[in-house]
Amino acid sequence: MRTVFVNGSYVPENEAQISIFDRGSLFGDAVYEVTSVLDGKLVEYDGHMTRLRRSLAELKLPSPATDDELLEIHRELVKRNDLTEGLIYLQISRGAADRDFLFPGPDVKPTLLMFPQKKSLINSALAARGQKIILVDDLRWRRCDIKTVQLLYASIVKNQAHDAGADDAWMVLDGEITEGSSNNAYIVTEDGTIVTRDLSTDILHGITRKSVLQCAAELQLKVEERPFTVAEAKAAKEAFSTSATSFVNPVIEIDGASIGEGKPGPIAKRLRQVYIESSKAAGI
Amino acid sequence: MRTVFVNGSYVPENEAQISIFDRGSLFGDAVYEVTSVLDGKLVEYDGHMTRLRRSLAELKLPSPATDDELLEIHRELVKRNDLTEGLIYLQISRGAADRDFLFPGPDVKPTLLMFPQKKSLINSALAARGQKIILVDDLRWRRCDIKTVQLLYASIVKNQAHDAGADDAWMVLDGEITEGSSNNAYIVTEDGTIVTRDLSTDILHGITRKSVLQCAAELQLKVEERPFTVAEAKAAKEAFSTSATSFVNPVIEIDGASIGEGKPGPIAKRLRQVYIESSKAAGI
Repeated sequence: MRTVFVNGSYVPENEAQISIFDRGSLFGDAVYEVTSVLDGKLVEYDGHMTRLRRSLAELKLPSPATDDELLEIHRELVKRNDLTEGLIYLQISRGAADRDFLFPGPDVKPTLLMFPQKKSLINSALAARGQKIILVDDLRWRRCDIKTVQLLYASIVKNQAHDAGADDAWMVLDGEITEGSSNNAYIVTEDGTIVTRDLSTDILHGITRKSVLQCAAELQLKVEERPFTVAEAKAAKEAFSTSATSFVNPVIEIDGASIGEGKPGPIAKRLRQVYIESSKAAGI
Repeated sequence: MRTVFVNGSYVPENEAQISIFDRGSLFGDAVYEVTSVLDGKLVEYDGHMTRLRRSLAELKLPSPATDDELLEIHRELVKRNDLTEGLIYLQISRGAADRDFLFPGPDVKPTLLMFPQKKSLINSALAARGQKIILVDDLRWRRCDIKTVQLLYASIVKNQAHDAGADDAWMVLDGEITEGSSNNAYIVTEDGTIVTRDLSTDILHGITRKSVLQCAAELQLKVEERPFTVAEAKAAKEAFSTSATSFVNPVIEIDGASIGEGKPGPIAKRLRQVYIESSKAAGI
């Protein structure tokens, strides 16, 4: 039985509840972050909290806790749940108010909920084998840079991928890849250049993305931040995705086309190794 | 204090809770319906339940209750809350399960929640005055035909309208109006033709829309179901919106342009009257 946090209290997970009037549930009016835990330490914590504050600001959604309080709750959840490897999920909604498309007044306090998940992140069978990807149209709302809980389409396409015997879906907008269901997408071209879509409202500004691109620069790999086409993806020498909980995750197949030699490529493997080492070293 | 319904129980509204793991809150993985109540009777109930079943089917989301049970709960909420005029809100999510983009197995039961809102629907000050509309880009996901709780953008633009001194926002996709924040959009052209966007994945298939178009046919008004442009909207002789709780709602201004004579037009007023009369007569 996990201990979770909801609106000021640490409670057993089966007692953790929110009002049926919570705007996260009624309107998708909530943002979230997922922070990995390695060796009991928070990975890229500052990056996640910076992005959280940006998401809140974009939606004019007040924070129900100070930076210090949020860090304390993260650490307390790690401690109370003996969490050595896994993640902490954090969600802030605009609070519980009688249903109205208009935002409630300042008397309504935002809802803060947080819970841990134990998960083997470093020893990942999928990362060792490599992901099979299907391509789907990107039908999401056009503010994917804000990390809201409006994840139904991402959930649908992840299920479609599994139903098709694949592992995940990459989304396609006007013939170009935007990102994966819950990760950023990359290819490596024939000349060894890493290509990933440039930042815009079309994709999540991945915390792991930023750090992995720094790792690539340190390894003196060539990086281009620009959209890439479906044809480029299928013809890639390597491909991979990045996210907070999967780090660098190799791709071996895109829409039936084998990528590279059909096994995790050397650049993805090297980046995964370097990223994990630096993240562990910098964990707090 | 209202009595509401959640997962099999009638409870006071301040005790009505769902798990923090509910997929409606974590993923926007939930659908809803809003049924008006006039004279203590349910308006267009069959239409709303038919659309609910379609939304559930599109998302492969099982129903937690039979048709008979849903009707009984609607009626019981009307009765327990002495609801003569207002609405019943119904929401079904895919249930509470540990957070995973993959849908949970069949052991996870969907969440059903329902609550009433008292509201003066027939005597509407806004309908008497007429709405001022702003135009905004339609940034929503591209399955607006499924009535999900992913309503954050609709909520944002409704707030933008109010901040601008207007009442609501109509959304524009490729230069053409799709619909309002929570209603379908109509114009009346110079020659008296009612124009509203044709059904597709771009708009909600309004229950009120269908009935109002039937009323228009019975009144021998000309109707065209096709997209209309921003220029057509601003030059319209009349404009109005329809929804389950606002019925037919006249528009008197679009993005600063006065519509018709700047007051509710005769066609909108007539349709509102006829729709309300027929809905009241057919309520169950």
